[in-house]
Amino acid sequence: MADVKWNLKAVDVKREANVPSDIQISRNQKPRPIAELARDIGIKDEELEAYGDKKAKVSLNLLKRLDKSENGKYVLVVGMTPTPLGEGKSTTTIGLAQSLFSQHSNPSFACVRQPSQGPTFGIKGGAAGGGYSQVIPMEEFNLHLTGDIHAITAANNLLAAAIDARIFHEATQADDALFNRLVPKNKEGKRLLTDIQKRRLQRLKIEVPEDAEKLSPEDRKRFARLDIDPDTITWSRVIDTSDRFLRKIEVGHGPTEKGHVRKTDFRISVGSELMAILALSLSLADMRERIGKIVVATDKFGQPVTADDFGVTGAMTVLMKDTIKPTLMQTIEGTPVFVHAGPFANIAHGASSVIADKLALKLVGKDGYVVTEAGFGFDIGGEKFLDIKARSSGLIPDVVVIVATVRALKMHGGGPPVGPGNLPAEYRTPNLDLLEKGCDSNLKKQIENIKKFGLPVIVCINQFSTDSQKELNLVKEKASSFGAVGVVSNHWAKGGEGAKDLAQAVKDSASQKNDFKFLYDLNKSIKEKIETIATEIYGAKDVEYSESAEKSIKRYTEQGFGNLPLCMAKTQLSLSHDPSKKGAPTGFTLPISEVSISVGAGFIFPLCGEIMTMPGLNTRPCFYDIDIDPVTEVIDGLF
Amino acid sequence: MADVKWNLKAVDVKREANVPSDIQISRNQKPRPIAELARDIGIKDEELEAYGDKKAKVSLNLLKRLDKSENGKYVLVVGMTPTPLGEGKSTTTIGLAQSLFSQHSNPSFACVRQPSQGPTFGIKGGAAGGGYSQVIPMEEFNLHLTGDIHAITAANNLLAAAIDARIFHEATQADDALFNRLVPKNKEGKRLLTDIQKRRLQRLKIEVPEDAEKLSPEDRKRFARLDIDPDTITWSRVIDTSDRFLRKIEVGHGPTEKGHVRKTDFRISVGSELMAILALSLSLADMRERIGKIVVATDKFGQPVTADDFGVTGAMTVLMKDTIKPTLMQTIEGTPVFVHAGPFANIAHGASSVIADKLALKLVGKDGYVVTEAGFGFDIGGEKFLDIKARSSGLIPDVVVIVATVRALKMHGGGPPVGPGNLPAEYRTPNLDLLEKGCDSNLKKQIENIKKFGLPVIVCINQFSTDSQKELNLVKEKASSFGAVGVVSNHWAKGGEGAKDLAQAVKDSASQKNDFKFLYDLNKSIKEKIETIATEIYGAKDVEYSESAEKSIKRYTEQGFGNLPLCMAKTQLSLSHDPSKKGAPTGFTLPISEVSISVGAGFIFPLCGEIMTMPGLNTRPCFYDIDIDPVTEVIDGLF
Repeated sequence: MADVKWNLKAVDVKREANVPSDIQISRNQKPRPIAELARDIGIKDEELEAYGDKKAKVSLNLLKRLDKSENGKYVLVVGMTPTPLGEGKSTTTIGLAQSLFSQHSNPSFACVRQPSQGPTFGIKGGAAGGGYSQVIPMEEFNLHLTGDIHAITAANNLLAAAIDARIFHEATQADDALFNRLVPKNKEGKRLLTDIQKRRLQRLKIEVPEDAEKLSPEDRKRFARLDIDPDTITWSRVIDTSDRFLRKIEVGHGPTEKGHVRKTDFRISVGSELMAILALSLSLADMRERIGKIVVATDKFGQPVTADDFGVTGAMTVLMKDTIKPTLMQTIEGTPVFVHAGPFANIAHGASSVIADKLALKLVGKDGYVVTEAGFGFDIGGEKFLDIKARSSGLIPDVVVIVATVRALKMHGGGPPVGPGNLPAEYRTPNLDLLEKGCDSNLKKQIENIKKFGLPVIVCINQFSTDSQKELNLVKEKASSFGAVGVVSNHWAKGGEGAKDLAQAVKDSASQKNDFKFLYDLNKSIKEKIETIATEIYGAKDVEYSESAEKSIKRYTEQGFGNLPLCMAKTQLSLSHDPSKKGAPTGFTLPISEVSISVGAGFIFPLCGEIMTMPGLNTRPCFYDIDIDPVTEVIDGLF
Repeated sequence: MADVKWNLKAVDVKREANVPSDIQISRNQKPRPIAELARDIGIKDEELEAYGDKKAKVSLNLLKRLDKSENGKYVLVVGMTPTPLGEGKSTTTIGLAQSLFSQHSNPSFACVRQPSQGPTFGIKGGAAGGGYSQVIPMEEFNLHLTGDIHAITAANNLLAAAIDARIFHEATQADDALFNRLVPKNKEGKRLLTDIQKRRLQRLKIEVPEDAEKLSPEDRKRFARLDIDPDTITWSRVIDTSDRFLRKIEVGHGPTEKGHVRKTDFRISVGSELMAILALSLSLADMRERIGKIVVATDKFGQPVTADDFGVTGAMTVLMKDTIKPTLMQTIEGTPVFVHAGPFANIAHGASSVIADKLALKLVGKDGYVVTEAGFGFDIGGEKFLDIKARSSGLIPDVVVIVATVRALKMHGGGPPVGPGNLPAEYRTPNLDLLEKGCDSNLKKQIENIKKFGLPVIVCINQFSTDSQKELNLVKEKASSFGAVGVVSNHWAKGGEGAKDLAQAVKDSASQKNDFKFLYDLNKSIKEKIETIATEIYGAKDVEYSESAEKSIKRYTEQGFGNLPLCMAKTQLSLSHDPSKKGAPTGFTLPISEVSISVGAGFIFPLCGEIMTMPGLNTRPCFYDIDIDPVTEVIDGLF
């Protein structure tokens, strides 16, 4: 089968030298009808589900149709350890994709994550890139999109409701009543089991009878009672709102719940295991299987209790059936973008979906490029991208682009703290000393880390107007001395044109052969894997486990989950577990406070200290600035 | 301007005499592409926002364009007091719309509510009508639709999060710190107020300065402190899942919340005031204004605290901006349907949106018919439809169709209790005695109630296969003796054809002049209004108020809300407040346990006894039967 030919033309953007606000840029550029764009890149009308005319879901039939096509090159964008302000990784992902297409005429795609509405309405506004490297329209990108996060919320909470309701019904009903309600008699007086109930019997190694009435009293009881140990429940409710008062709650205070009060929590929706499952699934069938395998608790006999045991696998999959299709949007220059999945980058792996990357690689064809990104710094998001996502998908990046800023490098070189509304003079005026120290510590270590995977590295120096030429040159030289290619990129101010050199460097490196290898072997023990990451990537001298972590490791190993990859939950603000330690700390002991598991997603997540899974609202959340003109429907404040 | 001409043709449905399951019927009938259907009824392509090819949102620009067109006839479908099994009101609404079009060639529209996913995955499966009178595809109707409920959930919970966070920040910060954070200095060193902050100052009768720095310390404090009395908070969080353990919860148990624990609850999302607001809004501007007016609590000085005081009006409107557009779908016979809004029928008014009805009335034109429905029995849903929705929209029905079943009539005549899986012999074999008693009590009273509004009444006898001809005839005669027109309708088994006589009766009655009047004058006191409804509609002899209800009535009257209409929250299973009292009870005292308010929606809701605002999951929820074939994507179990 011939490769797909694109009829797409880059859109000409009229840029102003004095870069306007993100929302102004987004508003000035009228997006093309998404159905036209889809046709231009070889998607058939029947493979597209429009959601209005600016975004559309793409059917997985396309993947089947393009099965024999050659893949394009796969470009992974990662970060150095960021300041709390962010260093422009998404903007770089979008700018690079724009440039490969508009400046180099290579078919290209950006694959990005769907943002959570929690932070969007809380502390930071939207997440569609910035300047002249943006996904448009930003309102559509930031609001609801095509409903995937809402569907995940619904499926997650159906399981949560099922858990508490089941514990309640088991506690308040005798064995017979429980069994008879679970398998009611049909009109012919038979108790027929549904498929999902048969699967539970099979897991219990009980032979499946035609009429469940024939089960022995003992087997009925084993079937009907999940016997959950409430203290072991790890499944949280979720909500896509930053609501700090839900971080820890007590449920069951209503009189109808008869005193069955329990402490639990709400996470932000993107922290649901279902989001990680969506991001890693290869097909609807795979997603359904992963959902069924989710472990939500341990029973009183030490055995895992799964979503399938509650009979809810099918319903959850039905609620999530459309999420499996990536959403097609466009950049300001008319480059196609897939927005798909957005798992948390701490308790999950933080990368957009395997399916979007797969589809995009087929769509761009052998001369094309797919630019995808990993969350946070390479130590967190990059390592997980390679050891979890790439391992699961079989898609290995051809080149890694690490985004660095003079600002972040100075911070790692010993500059004073940086935060929203707080950027001391060191960061606004040249300071080669701080800069060099930052290069020699954090940047050097992050590059070394990438090289452990055998991949070529490009350092993208994301240019700010306050950067001096000497500073930019220094970073380039340093990058080169660390065995990487350093390129200054100005895509924020100049769009694809500003990233022309970066795109050229990507093309040069991606065509080289590489010696990719994973960091660790899955068959190593959980502790060996933790220690490999801690010492090799983070720079720790050793690892210390809490009593509870020791217990969990033992339990998961006994339950047969020891060979899953790891998803380390660690602060993104330091290579170590201590956010105040900048540069490249060494000699520290990494504390593992707890070890949890996402069997459906397929990873174990050790927690290095406290990890916040629900953001909060500060005194003046950014929603104060958000409004809509009810006549023109123009939205303000989503910057 | 000429009336819209329809190019639409009714779809021929191949019916089986042995009516298959709802899902089977839905699956056998391929829906037309919704964009084609829209064109056929005069909607322009640019007025349509596709969500896939089976549902689409309709822009409100259409309302502007058709502003001068004549309205069609407006048909309201209501119920008698139902059995717990439901008497087929939605099915009748859809069957009647089908018949008016397919059998009588009149342009027609059905306007129905979006169902909550809570019950869909809990106790009852989908809600798209039934038999050969259905909205298709039922999966799309029952799952997410176009995201309106999810958007309402997000907006509702943003306000809830803002309330608790604000109380926390006020409790933990000094006046100056709080003020300075709420109105931070800009780059020029000035403290500029946003529009929403200026509105708060105006409500406080404080002159708005250019630079907020100029406010006196006292004014700063009044501005910055909402001083909410936590015991008066009436705003709940919501979730579209049946989760009984959230009926009463304690939030704030996390260490970051420093002991600010508070008891609160989650409601099902359709119980949010925002759903009632959506259903009653006339435009985006109206919706935004209503959102700002929502009262969430009382401050320590007895004054109402509104959504606008939190600075969140604009953000909530932005989250809900697309909900204002009705979703277009179709019946199995290709009749157009608007699915829009679905407020609870107890703590809210239970009818689909004003905007959908308005749009549909313009689209069908003067020879056309719009069939819309009210929740529960006429005593609940019908009275509210007329006194709240019609009063607010100015659209008065031309005729009221009350759906009765032989089954429900027998129950009211003294038959034994009826429930899911429990239909005693009396209901399956002829019993003229029970039937007559049911007609003479409940049906008679409901008809009398409708006539108090001065509207013509048609009794639609929704036929079941177990009904005898004598029984059907008896109900017809009885209806006639009560001053209504009785018609047997068999739309469940025969679609539009089965409702041909019903449609003819509707046409005959709708062309008569009527003497519509509201039940009560808004200027009456809250108590007078409650007593009017209680005695005239419910049959009570008097009303008894709890101490708390007395206090609330006094407070709302003082706050200036006394002239709002009432939205009575009462059981739907009896004309009285006691679900066990069937027929037409009299001589009882109606207890008002509490009185609450929805200022944004624009009504006061007195509670007659305990009202459940969060459904639960039983031992074997219907999700056990729900599954999707991952290859064919066929969904099972949404019956």
